[in-house]
Amino acid sequence: MSTKDINLKALFIGDKSENGDMFKNFLVKLVDQHLGWRYNYMPQDEAMISHEDKESESFKNTVTRMEDVLEEVSIRLRTNSVPWHSAGRYWGHMNAETLMPAILAYDFAMLWNGNNVAYESSPGTSQMEEEVGHDFATLLGFKEGWGHIVADGSLANLEGLWYARNMKSIPLAVKKVAPEFVEGKSEWELLNMSAEDAMAILKKMNVEQIDAVKAASARNGKDLQKLGKWLVPQSKHYSWPKAADIIGIGLDQVVPIPLKDNYRMDVAELEKTIRKLTAEKTPILGVVAVVGTTEEGAIDEVDKIVALREKLKNEGIYFYLHVDAAYAGYMRALVLDEENQVIPYDQMAAKCKEYGVFQDHDMLLSKEVYNALVAIKDAESVTIDPHKMGYIPYAAGGIAIRDVYMREIISYFATYVFERGADIPALLGAYMLEGSKAGATGAAVWAAHRVLPLNIAGYGKLIGASMEGARNFYDFLNGLGKFQVGDKTVSIHTLINPDFNMVDYVFKVDGDDSLTAMNDLNNEFYKLSSFNSGCLYYNEYIISHTDFAVEGYGDSPVNFVHNTCGLSLKEWEKAKKVVILRACVLSPYMNVKEAFDEFAADIKKIFQKRLEQILLK
Amino acid sequence: MSTKDINLKALFIGDKSENGDMFKNFLVKLVDQHLGWRYNYMPQDEAMISHEDKESESFKNTVTRMEDVLEEVSIRLRTNSVPWHSAGRYWGHMNAETLMPAILAYDFAMLWNGNNVAYESSPGTSQMEEEVGHDFATLLGFKEGWGHIVADGSLANLEGLWYARNMKSIPLAVKKVAPEFVEGKSEWELLNMSAEDAMAILKKMNVEQIDAVKAASARNGKDLQKLGKWLVPQSKHYSWPKAADIIGIGLDQVVPIPLKDNYRMDVAELEKTIRKLTAEKTPILGVVAVVGTTEEGAIDEVDKIVALREKLKNEGIYFYLHVDAAYAGYMRALVLDEENQVIPYDQMAAKCKEYGVFQDHDMLLSKEVYNALVAIKDAESVTIDPHKMGYIPYAAGGIAIRDVYMREIISYFATYVFERGADIPALLGAYMLEGSKAGATGAAVWAAHRVLPLNIAGYGKLIGASMEGARNFYDFLNGLGKFQVGDKTVSIHTLINPDFNMVDYVFKVDGDDSLTAMNDLNNEFYKLSSFNSGCLYYNEYIISHTDFAVEGYGDSPVNFVHNTCGLSLKEWEKAKKVVILRACVLSPYMNVKEAFDEFAADIKKIFQKRLEQILLK
Repeated sequence: MSTKDINLKALFIGDKSENGDMFKNFLVKLVDQHLGWRYNYMPQDEAMISHEDKESESFKNTVTRMEDVLEEVSIRLRTNSVPWHSAGRYWGHMNAETLMPAILAYDFAMLWNGNNVAYESSPGTSQMEEEVGHDFATLLGFKEGWGHIVADGSLANLEGLWYARNMKSIPLAVKKVAPEFVEGKSEWELLNMSAEDAMAILKKMNVEQIDAVKAASARNGKDLQKLGKWLVPQSKHYSWPKAADIIGIGLDQVVPIPLKDNYRMDVAELEKTIRKLTAEKTPILGVVAVVGTTEEGAIDEVDKIVALREKLKNEGIYFYLHVDAAYAGYMRALVLDEENQVIPYDQMAAKCKEYGVFQDHDMLLSKEVYNALVAIKDAESVTIDPHKMGYIPYAAGGIAIRDVYMREIISYFATYVFERGADIPALLGAYMLEGSKAGATGAAVWAAHRVLPLNIAGYGKLIGASMEGARNFYDFLNGLGKFQVGDKTVSIHTLINPDFNMVDYVFKVDGDDSLTAMNDLNNEFYKLSSFNSGCLYYNEYIISHTDFAVEGYGDSPVNFVHNTCGLSLKEWEKAKKVVILRACVLSPYMNVKEAFDEFAADIKKIFQKRLEQILLK
Repeated sequence: MSTKDINLKALFIGDKSENGDMFKNFLVKLVDQHLGWRYNYMPQDEAMISHEDKESESFKNTVTRMEDVLEEVSIRLRTNSVPWHSAGRYWGHMNAETLMPAILAYDFAMLWNGNNVAYESSPGTSQMEEEVGHDFATLLGFKEGWGHIVADGSLANLEGLWYARNMKSIPLAVKKVAPEFVEGKSEWELLNMSAEDAMAILKKMNVEQIDAVKAASARNGKDLQKLGKWLVPQSKHYSWPKAADIIGIGLDQVVPIPLKDNYRMDVAELEKTIRKLTAEKTPILGVVAVVGTTEEGAIDEVDKIVALREKLKNEGIYFYLHVDAAYAGYMRALVLDEENQVIPYDQMAAKCKEYGVFQDHDMLLSKEVYNALVAIKDAESVTIDPHKMGYIPYAAGGIAIRDVYMREIISYFATYVFERGADIPALLGAYMLEGSKAGATGAAVWAAHRVLPLNIAGYGKLIGASMEGARNFYDFLNGLGKFQVGDKTVSIHTLINPDFNMVDYVFKVDGDDSLTAMNDLNNEFYKLSSFNSGCLYYNEYIISHTDFAVEGYGDSPVNFVHNTCGLSLKEWEKAKKVVILRACVLSPYMNVKEAFDEFAADIKKIFQKRLEQILLK
């Protein structure tokens, strides 16, 4: 069947439960199929629960008890949940309604409760996760790659750092146990051997040699700090210091790289830092490029980082590259055609038109972002979370590696679930950080990927809808002009032209040049627009917020505070942080201008009302 | 409502879908409540998906596409899933059908897709997880304790080791940054300070001092190996070497402690090892007691380990104690009365009778196991997995700590999800290894704990049913006598009198004194009784197996191989492993003798048939 004309509206329950009946019908049908399966398994066996059992007082009382509990679950969730599903009233965290096929596959598969840690425990869903792993690899451009689902992106980042740490130590371990493979190489050269070359050595070894190298590698806990520094953009997600703590290299080994005004890592600064460190003979354990920062949606220039790596390789300097694309990894679907080939940039606009990716725009993908996405294929490992831009319910993170053989450097074998060399698709538990994991998650991601292919026709279109929704919101904010609130006028300033689908902004009272006052205003506005003001179900406009503080961001926010908002550098020195209102636009409906405009008119009124609430009190 | 007469049969869908209609009714009702919630959110807003949309070709084609995918999901799962739900034909891995209220709460909560990493993203389910954490603490006897759901037990073990590593380093860090708090203490004394004393120092410090201590602790990656050895029973689950690799202390720091014939850790050997190490001035980072080994269901004598710790404390030796009760943690419900007080052992039989815990036995909990369970309250941290004996769908592991304040030594704060000091129940992501996590899991565990209280009336009864099923199976195997297969007779040997609900056994041809031959026989038997022989749906008897190999077990299996099976020590030296058939009995139905006997009669015939298939071919 052609995938040229996928209709996204058929794939969600809908902001108003428009497809609620369809969802229910599918669900009941699937549940019936499961119940029939149980019923017909070994039809000669008698049922354990008799009609008399069901007539007993204790049975009835227990059912009543269960009813009461489920009633309380229902009350609590209906009272205290977030209306992500809203088409145009939720402009906050990275969440939205999720894909119907994913929910249905999850519900269905959960009835079997497979555990994808081992094939034996989940033949059906293990196979699906294996296929999902290859989906990731194909999406990211890894020809010999592999991947798997991870409980979340923080863990996937930790697994990426685990890979990097063990990988970096392999050449030194080879030197210790089989020096003939690295004859004539200095320690510095060993610490700067590429992952590719290190793997090539392992591939030449026999099983005993490989095991000896693994035992002498970083997994022996020795000299971890010798492996060098882990370079991350200053916008660093808190999962990185946490990962450095857990993995044992230590927080001090994490070096933040300054950002440019667009909140992308400054690759010139990266080069400078690398040159400074390597001049002191401190190796670079690895570099993290972030494809989609959680606060700004900024996309690091992976292509430039890859180019830098090539350049430095010729100078005998090498670093492992992990791309944290937890957030925007699925965006790469936008640049793939239906044969999974990268679409040349100059054909993107035409292709987007052909597939109906955008409604009122030719193209929203900048050349820079396009280049970054394409270059992901040159990273060693990538975090990519289905529960973010995959529109899959939690918990479904993911990781992919460029070379499936890399699994060897982190692998374990356990007697009861694994038999080395067993002829089964994947002994997943031996190749990942986690142990037991829900087979249902594999089924959910698999189903979503099958309905929405990971190219411009499928996920590309969904990502496009999200980006266009963000663009509509960004243009709306910038076009709002000033609010008259009593004798004050209030302006809106947006942070950056979004790389992806996140829009950050602040309110500012004109002429009030105190950053603290601006922060207070935005904090108050956030409180009125979040759970802090009471039940979210009644709140007509819901947002999230973030702080850019000196502590985490250095002076990156100065451009915004000073040049955009017009506050003095002194104010920045004084307040040391700026409070930002943050909208991650995942709604699949806000790309349609007329629909957006209806909400926009209402939101404008709410802005006015809330500003009055704050400033006129 | 009294919980004295809970009927377990009302809580499962049923081996033959006996409660299938009830399940469906509940499910549809809950789904309707969710759909109504969406429909009524901001009733003034227009729906995004119009009737025209639904009439379009693209919409219809997309629905058809989704139908095809879901159809394939259904075919794959019905063909390649494991019939855990079977009352008496599945005798293998640690799985069974799961509790209906947990499945329903999961299905329902997933529609909102909360993320329990932060309260803001999931007010309803975050609160539930907070309550579940306190459930864990209460169940385990932690008065000032706390806990949370973890994706799985391997990760919870890793988190436990993370706690231990950072904890052990605190006194040394205090010495570095605020020596006045540990004046006069030698390095050896600091390395042997109890967790309680280390926490007491932190509690006296101001925020800046605490942050400085944290920065100077093991999270700086320095001197990790100085912290000493991590002692685990020789039966060690593969999650421990994996955790030692990841956490950076290194595989060499993991010291296996020999087992006794009953596969429990030998506490005398533990003491010997500790004395040897400490005599060499090597500190003990910590000790792991396993409450329910994955291969034998053996329960380490936690009480004796705690007593040993008390004794050694007086000699200036201290170790952190982590109990890996991933498997059998819920068993502690059996020893708690409805007020969560520990039932004295001499009243256990009467209480079990009062609550109908066992059908044909007075008591199946030995004094030794009872003592071990009670003593868990003295551990620093405990892994406890709802997706094992909690009968919750994957993925729901868990961890609990004795003193909630311990969170401080691993905590992080991130700008966008956390505000230090915010007045909300829990900033969970700051206090755990993982990041994003499904709110639905919190709802599932919460609902199950509310329907089945964590005491003798609730989970105790369910655990009892499982233990009695195992006892019935164990007695059945031991009473089978010999099978005549052609001119051979075949005996069954059981490994140990089960501590819990796991039954291990082997087939052996009488007079054939080759261990390799015995292993081959059991391997063949396993293959016929697993996915290796084809679709499980048609297999009338399904099992799991394990290898006890010298590599992992040392000589622990010698008693079984030599004394029980009557093979020579030479044979053990030669084969170096014994293949064991393994039944983890989770079925909630096999406690009823008549029901068990019906299956037993059939299983006996299947044994005969399969032995003939193997031995007469």
